[in-house]
Amino acid sequence: MAGNSFGQLFRITTAGESHGPGNVVIIDGVPPGLPLTVEDFLPDLARRRPGQSRIVTQRNESDEPEILSGVFEGQTTGTSLAILIRNQDQRSRDYGDIRDKYRPGHADFSFDAKYGLRDYRGGGRSSARETTVRVAAGVVAKKVIETAFGGSVVGYVCQIGEIRATIDDPAAVTLDRVETLPNGEPNIVRCPDIAAAGRMVALIDELRKEGDSIGGAAEVVASNIPAGLGEPVFDKLKADLAKALFTLPAVLGVEYGIGFGCATMRGSENNDVFVPADGSEPNRSGAPAIATESNRHGGMLGGISTGQPIVLRAAVKPTSSLPIEQRTVTRHGDPTTIRTKGRHDPCLLPRFVPIAEAMVAIVLADHWLRWQAQCGGFPE
Amino acid sequence: MAGNSFGQLFRITTAGESHGPGNVVIIDGVPPGLPLTVEDFLPDLARRRPGQSRIVTQRNESDEPEILSGVFEGQTTGTSLAILIRNQDQRSRDYGDIRDKYRPGHADFSFDAKYGLRDYRGGGRSSARETTVRVAAGVVAKKVIETAFGGSVVGYVCQIGEIRATIDDPAAVTLDRVETLPNGEPNIVRCPDIAAAGRMVALIDELRKEGDSIGGAAEVVASNIPAGLGEPVFDKLKADLAKALFTLPAVLGVEYGIGFGCATMRGSENNDVFVPADGSEPNRSGAPAIATESNRHGGMLGGISTGQPIVLRAAVKPTSSLPIEQRTVTRHGDPTTIRTKGRHDPCLLPRFVPIAEAMVAIVLADHWLRWQAQCGGFPE
Amino acid sequence: MAGNSFGQLFRITTAGESHGPGNVVIIDGVPPGLPLTVEDFLPDLARRRPGQSRIVTQRNESDEPEILSGVFEGQTTGTSLAILIRNQDQRSRDYGDIRDKYRPGHADFSFDAKYGLRDYRGGGRSSARETTVRVAAGVVAKKVIETAFGGSVVGYVCQIGEIRATIDDPAAVTLDRVETLPNGEPNIVRCPDIAAAGRMVALIDELRKEGDSIGGAAEVVASNIPAGLGEPVFDKLKADLAKALFTLPAVLGVEYGIGFGCATMRGSENNDVFVPADGSEPNRSGAPAIATESNRHGGMLGGISTGQPIVLRAAVKPTSSLPIEQRTVTRHGDPTTIRTKGRHDPCLLPRFVPIAEAMVAIVLADHWLRWQAQCGGFPE
Amino acid sequence: MAGNSFGQLFRITTAGESHGPGNVVIIDGVPPGLPLTVEDFLPDLARRRPGQSRIVTQRNESDEPEILSGVFEGQTTGTSLAILIRNQDQRSRDYGDIRDKYRPGHADFSFDAKYGLRDYRGGGRSSARETTVRVAAGVVAKKVIETAFGGSVVGYVCQIGEIRATIDDPAAVTLDRVETLPNGEPNIVRCPDIAAAGRMVALIDELRKEGDSIGGAAEVVASNIPAGLGEPVFDKLKADLAKALFTLPAVLGVEYGIGFGCATMRGSENNDVFVPADGSEPNRSGAPAIATESNRHGGMLGGISTGQPIVLRAAVKPTSSLPIEQRTVTRHGDPTTIRTKGRHDPCLLPRFVPIAEAMVAIVLADHWLRWQAQCGGFPE
Repeated sequence: MAGNSFGQLFRITTAGESHGPGNVVIIDGVPPGLPLTVEDFLPDLARRRPGQSRIVTQRNESDEPEILSGVFEGQTTGTSLAILIRNQDQRSRDYGDIRDKYRPGHADFSFDAKYGLRDYRGGGRSSARETTVRVAAGVVAKKVIETAFGGSVVGYVCQIGEIRATIDDPAAVTLDRVETLPNGEPNIVRCPDIAAAGRMVALIDELRKEGDSIGGAAEVVASNIPAGLGEPVFDKLKADLAKALFTLPAVLGVEYGIGFGCATMRGSENNDVFVPADGSEPNRSGAPAIATESNRHGGMLGGISTGQPIVLRAAVKPTSSLPIEQRTVTRHGDPTTIRTKGRHDPCLLPRFVPIAEAMVAIVLADHWLRWQAQCGGFPE
Repeated sequence: MAGNSFGQLFRITTAGESHGPGNVVIIDGVPPGLPLTVEDFLPDLARRRPGQSRIVTQRNESDEPEILSGVFEGQTTGTSLAILIRNQDQRSRDYGDIRDKYRPGHADFSFDAKYGLRDYRGGGRSSARETTVRVAAGVVAKKVIETAFGGSVVGYVCQIGEIRATIDDPAAVTLDRVETLPNGEPNIVRCPDIAAAGRMVALIDELRKEGDSIGGAAEVVASNIPAGLGEPVFDKLKADLAKALFTLPAVLGVEYGIGFGCATMRGSENNDVFVPADGSEPNRSGAPAIATESNRHGGMLGGISTGQPIVLRAAVKPTSSLPIEQRTVTRHGDPTTIRTKGRHDPCLLPRFVPIAEAMVAIVLADHWLRWQAQCGGFPE
Repeated sequence: MAGNSFGQLFRITTAGESHGPGNVVIIDGVPPGLPLTVEDFLPDLARRRPGQSRIVTQRNESDEPEILSGVFEGQTTGTSLAILIRNQDQRSRDYGDIRDKYRPGHADFSFDAKYGLRDYRGGGRSSARETTVRVAAGVVAKKVIETAFGGSVVGYVCQIGEIRATIDDPAAVTLDRVETLPNGEPNIVRCPDIAAAGRMVALIDELRKEGDSIGGAAEVVASNIPAGLGEPVFDKLKADLAKALFTLPAVLGVEYGIGFGCATMRGSENNDVFVPADGSEPNRSGAPAIATESNRHGGMLGGISTGQPIVLRAAVKPTSSLPIEQRTVTRHGDPTTIRTKGRHDPCLLPRFVPIAEAMVAIVLADHWLRWQAQCGGFPE
Repeated sequence: MAGNSFGQLFRITTAGESHGPGNVVIIDGVPPGLPLTVEDFLPDLARRRPGQSRIVTQRNESDEPEILSGVFEGQTTGTSLAILIRNQDQRSRDYGDIRDKYRPGHADFSFDAKYGLRDYRGGGRSSARETTVRVAAGVVAKKVIETAFGGSVVGYVCQIGEIRATIDDPAAVTLDRVETLPNGEPNIVRCPDIAAAGRMVALIDELRKEGDSIGGAAEVVASNIPAGLGEPVFDKLKADLAKALFTLPAVLGVEYGIGFGCATMRGSENNDVFVPADGSEPNRSGAPAIATESNRHGGMLGGISTGQPIVLRAAVKPTSSLPIEQRTVTRHGDPTTIRTKGRHDPCLLPRFVPIAEAMVAIVLADHWLRWQAQCGGFPE
């Protein structure tokens, strides 16, 4: 229970550090019979990979996944599925500065305070390097929800600094629109509002040259999610989704639906009106097919999905590692200054998108299995 | 795993509904030897109780806790501690309207979609009535963290509608200041900015008369929390605290520290500078005693506490039940309208404060036990 | 995680002590829509109740269950189901002897060693009184497995001291045969071998008069369990069933199928031969319907059920509390002697049967939900 | 929750199959600061390795562990510790016979019944190959309990077929005596009764030549375990230890202390008498240092350790795979016969010993962390 597992029935357990041999995830609870190959992991890993564009870190990691178990003849077997992604660059170098100094905004000090020691070569276990295997697990989770009910999860950047995207209908944003510009070039900032995307890229370019970084926000939308997922008290779907996003480095806020905007609303204007869902069949549990006219509730009421699109937003802080000088203290408590060498993202958001999608998909796969367990019904 | 438990080592499991015999919580993992009596539960239960002021619901519930187990001769025994709080008013009445209609903003429809049936007499298991026993569990958790390291948790209202409180130093807000006005009268809205508090009360009064409701936000501050609590990956302290708040009804957003404000920050202005902590002894794990000049990081870095005050904010939507007419559908899918009878809070925030405190305290007690388990050290 | 919960998806959490107000169980994961009333609990509670015959303890407890939550209009709702059974006799009395002395064979010393304190009025949390609510939870579990796949669980006494019952076909033993003699009188020792039963009763009567007690063994048989339940590695069905029985007081050994008899077997004589199952349909997962000619494997291979009857045996030690004098030490470490007053069972086995059945049913209900979650299949 | 994790605070999660790339374990909850290198794993892995003597399987696996994470500069970091052991021989071969036939005594049929498919190349996930990484995890657990309280775990073979070893004092058996004969040669059957050991080897040799196999039993003794470990209700130390042993392939029975022998005992002869422990200091929780004159209770009362040696026994069935012909059915349900090719152990016991030790050590490490969490005490 030292916190290296996530999920109840679709459950991932990870290990690995930024400067060790690699990262591994064990996925427990994968339904048997799902087609799965190494190639399935490559697209999302490429979306997360360093060096994918000029506005992300230029580190070089190839991120080649190896399936260690759980797949036989191209199908999941139902037993634990392990995926190993080795780190490429482990050569020793001079860690002098970060070995003895606490980097501002990083976990260096809190690790020492917790464990009494830490891997001073980098972020160690708290590095975002660990998210590679979460993305791999997310690929399996996306397969589960797509196979089970045609569900999909798409994320995108909605804010960088003061630049905010305008998205009329979150549920209409496709993966293609997030990844590719109308002119066929890659949408390197992953913002589907093309005009905003251009300004975002320009801002990140500018900060990169200044040796500074910038924060932002991303939105994740889960579509075609059946009503009835989520538990009514502690494991509300909103609570598990929010936790999932807060497990990611640099996330300082999460909201869904109207989010913090609800604080200024009156009940009479906030409630979404229920209406019949035209042409739909009853819910599997016998409830009528109904919809809401608006979606301020972000697809969840009482912590349980309503069948409307689930819309979440996460605030991501600017990268803490900066090549410019910052004040700090040494691990002996003496004041000093630090410049963080190495190649860092001037903005975390473009690479954050596939990671956030993965965590949302994992929660949805987990809750679908949970629904199946308790409410999937007695044989007729 | 149908989600009625919360926490790992300090673990609560609840049962009960709004219109059943009562609510019960079993707390597992309470350290032995803590002094505890029924009287200890009364103050926080009174802060949560209906009917405590004119700006909350006028329902009548006395909320008398009975300790069923886990306490002997005024001390916790280390075995599971159960607390029962009976519901007072269970007389049957005419549920006609809500029996067949889905109340907008409530879990009525999602329950039917999930389970195929529901207790139509009210919120049932999704009612905020369930939070009574969470508050009781929070009292035990507060004892644990106070005894273990002198920690405390104080919450307050920081926003109602457009009215925002000004709080210079969140960590300086005392329980007394939250509960009592300078003139000795009760601070019924629980906002420590007295001027704002007055305007908040006036706004709630106005909405109550209109048959409407209003949203808001609350802040919870945990002080004197040692550095080193929280797990580095999935059970980050920020993730467990955020989940804790999102398990509460009506919460649509959670942030900590600078929160969503980080989206517009540059790294050079966002990072909090580490400085030596004057006159302090080294951390238990041997790390030096250090502080930060500012607290944009809200007391947590890498998901682990830094020793700075932990500052969280939650957005709470306006009460969904309204005496004014709203459109909706029946459980057969037919359009209709509904007026929710009964006595409801025109604003959830004043009663939300002790509940949010309880959830934060439960997470901190849990993580302290977790630290103790793994890092508490080998006997010397 | 102080061990007051059991099961993963069908999960029970208990609280309560022998000399407190009562015992309570919260059952999480109950499927919605099961018919359930207070009356359903009475038969099994009566089978466990003190005072049911002359060969069990003559204490007086009426064991009236109150359903606190989770049932509405006679059906389970899917939310957490809580059952409270109050203790009747809590009058204070003179605990002088057991207050300061460690009773041999009891948990008195180990409690002090663990917690540094204990409820000296009796067994406290380690009392078999706690098993009342397990029996109640077992009633719900039996409903689940009967509804889901027609499964049933029947236990009986197979050994008291040197008297061993002869049971030709464990799966043919019915509840009626366990409870009632051919002459219509109650089978107070719960042994379906009538001749052995008579001698068992005589032996227990003899020991009761001597102020002594006697051990024994019970067998539990689960019939009509589908092939495919159980997890292949740590949560093998045999492992979870064995743990379930070892959680019961006084159990010192558990075996299934041929059990310890396997130590003297050769592979060629031990393996059960697979044969086609006449007239049966394929297994739900598409495997053919097959049977084994013999059942030395006790219904489980590789930790997963095979469709053959599951047959378990537990060894139960003689009651430790004795009215005759025994040597021991005080809680200050000084040698002394003790006679345990009060009314104790001269043999635990007759009342052990319904408790063991309950634990087996709980494990089977849990594993059925687990199968349903992962392998219950994608909608077609 | 598909059962690939074991333990609560010291928690292992495994993945891997007999014919896949390898097996991996992630250990969560390892205390920081323990010295650990790859070499530490080699001795116990060698004790488990195929080909170690003529009486075990002659398969060739080198079992070289790679530490993927959790160790830095020769010390555990407190973060998740992953160990990978690759399978050596994965060449494809003709699986014709086992592909279509259910091997008697194996999990082949139950896997198909559960998942609807299986890896037909061998045991797959249910193969004992998976226990390599359990042994590796056991090495870490042994370090934890040795460092924390000087605890140790030693196992040995006590029965093969009808040959029973005579062990006067289980707690006096040393690892050296288990591994090495007085003449300095390896004790290949791992039975510390030398005379019995000779006859055991002769019997196994004989069965090997006949193409048959034989069952047996092993005893595991944990010494120097402090009083107070274990939870009073569901996570009794006896229950978790029994489950641990039942998770191992081929185990059909587990008992502790007097075990099934208790069935014929009277209370007056079974109870162990408490006596002062000469020259000892009080228990950490303040209980006096006391001992028992005998150890029929196997070191646990009320599911909590008493400070006496913990003594467990497991019955292990004869190897199911036999080169001689056995009747069975195909996966289409048709009767057939099968001879299992390949190199199999004629008796599982010699290699079972280190695996059983590992599981016992893992449970003890877990319960020590649990004690530390709840009862480790508030800072003074």
